[in-house]
Amino acid sequence: MNEFALIKKLFTPLSANFPGALGLTDDAALISPPDNMQLVITTDMLHETIHFIGNESPADIARKLVRRNLSDLAAMGAEPYCCFLGLGVPSTRGKAWLESFAEGLTEDLQKFAFPLSGGDTGNSKTHISLSLTACGLVPTGQALRRNGAQIGDDIYVSGTIGDAALGLKILRGEFPPHSFLKQDDFLKQRYLIPQPRLELGKKLREIANSCIDISDGLLQDLQHICTTSHCSATINYEKIPFSRPLPPELKSELISAGDDYELLFTAPTEKSAEILALGENITCIGKIIVGEFVAPSGYQHKF
Amino acid sequence: MNEFALIKKLFTPLSANFPGALGLTDDAALISPPDNMQLVITTDMLHETIHFIGNESPADIARKLVRRNLSDLAAMGAEPYCCFLGLGVPSTRGKAWLESFAEGLTEDLQKFAFPLSGGDTGNSKTHISLSLTACGLVPTGQALRRNGAQIGDDIYVSGTIGDAALGLKILRGEFPPHSFLKQDDFLKQRYLIPQPRLELGKKLREIANSCIDISDGLLQDLQHICTTSHCSATINYEKIPFSRPLPPELKSELISAGDDYELLFTAPTEKSAEILALGENITCIGKIIVGEFVAPSGYQHKF
Repeated sequence: MNEFALIKKLFTPLSANFPGALGLTDDAALISPPDNMQLVITTDMLHETIHFIGNESPADIARKLVRRNLSDLAAMGAEPYCCFLGLGVPSTRGKAWLESFAEGLTEDLQKFAFPLSGGDTGNSKTHISLSLTACGLVPTGQALRRNGAQIGDDIYVSGTIGDAALGLKILRGEFPPHSFLKQDDFLKQRYLIPQPRLELGKKLREIANSCIDISDGLLQDLQHICTTSHCSATINYEKIPFSRPLPPELKSELISAGDDYELLFTAPTEKSAEILALGENITCIGKIIVGEFVAPSGYQHKF
Repeated sequence: MNEFALIKKLFTPLSANFPGALGLTDDAALISPPDNMQLVITTDMLHETIHFIGNESPADIARKLVRRNLSDLAAMGAEPYCCFLGLGVPSTRGKAWLESFAEGLTEDLQKFAFPLSGGDTGNSKTHISLSLTACGLVPTGQALRRNGAQIGDDIYVSGTIGDAALGLKILRGEFPPHSFLKQDDFLKQRYLIPQPRLELGKKLREIANSCIDISDGLLQDLQHICTTSHCSATINYEKIPFSRPLPPELKSELISAGDDYELLFTAPTEKSAEILALGENITCIGKIIVGEFVAPSGYQHKF
């Protein structure tokens, strides 16, 4: 199938009901954000063998691409507005791969009310490379930032930590056959299909002083908050929430592992009741203090 | 060099003077387009061996990435506003490759007043994959579209056609040693470093009925205008501007070849004097007529 027929069949339907997409027939989209709203824009790439294994279902790869970006919007307190897709797929992968990818993409863009507004579809040489640019909306002046943490703030994390890293280990066959973790579908799903905390991000707009999503690892992302907010942090390691009983050495590893896509945020102590009342699974794990925070390195690409 | 040190050294300076970039320290950029302006957003990818050969200077690859996207903005009559970069570079390419890439990027982003507002830097496995999302600004309601061509419009093209395709043939060594084209630096440069027609695009806002940039090939891109405008076209093939005397069979090939990044546009006949007075190198090559236009295929990716 050629490029234009493919776009029309698989992707044009994803632009429906979003006038700015111009039906994916123009050189670019034409966007007028609503009054009193700011655009929150982020871009992310996924490269085969680096960010995903390659043998996942193409639909799951699409979901991961979408949700990683939505997690960045969540961290800023933004709602999904529209997105732009870049596809680089070797011709050897064939039409079936793309159709399955489009299936996952379609489901997720509908689920998150996230119309496709443009993109670029082409062949890459040997490995799949994908990009998504996500545009979100936030009321002017209400975006959550990394740089707002205040001395004395409590540090919170949503959900549980390290599940995705454990899921990846399971998928890679890194646990011995008798390990209780070997077949844990919950953990595998946590790696394959992140859950962006969009609702929580929205609720935190008027509560949190700073926020980030955990993509590089809990400690590394806390480092980002501390660096931009010019402060340090003290962590109560026993409070860090794990979904499973785990040996201590694995816990230490997981707090520097990536792909959690939970929110890490700080808020003044007087907000603690309000935060617990949010009805989300949130744990207070420490406090912002004076000083300089130096985390052990999380996952970083090397050049 | 690790990912964060690299971003800070090479890319943070490119976000200077653009507050919405938040110094590249947050999960996303925070953009408030000026009053009475619309955002024009497009995304494009470049994959090694597909969109570039791989042995070009990294600085030239950066320029090509930037300029292909700027050409899409030009086609909509938009001015550069800000951009988002996705880098997938194998670790084997090393720091030197990235530093040279950043040099070309820095020069072009300054030249075009196009601040970097976000991005994603990571390793890809074996080949380089790059993405750029370009945001432009256009006064509300003044964007040029593909779908506005009217029966009786003249069809114009800027610059000359096929130079980039010839340049690529030269770089690939496809011309025999005695060919007069074998060493033609102008043609090579036309392939390596496109010139986005931003000034022309701006001037055409109130003149042209439809516009597109020629990236897929003159005939193929004319097809896009005709399809979205529900019309056909008649071309005076002798008028198509080439920069060199060429054998007829090469001319026929070049009008379906891509990468020109010139503007193809249509305008009512009464605008012809105004168009010639623009002081740009513009040629009238045909007319919009009733019917359905069927071009031979230009370059398309296959799946």
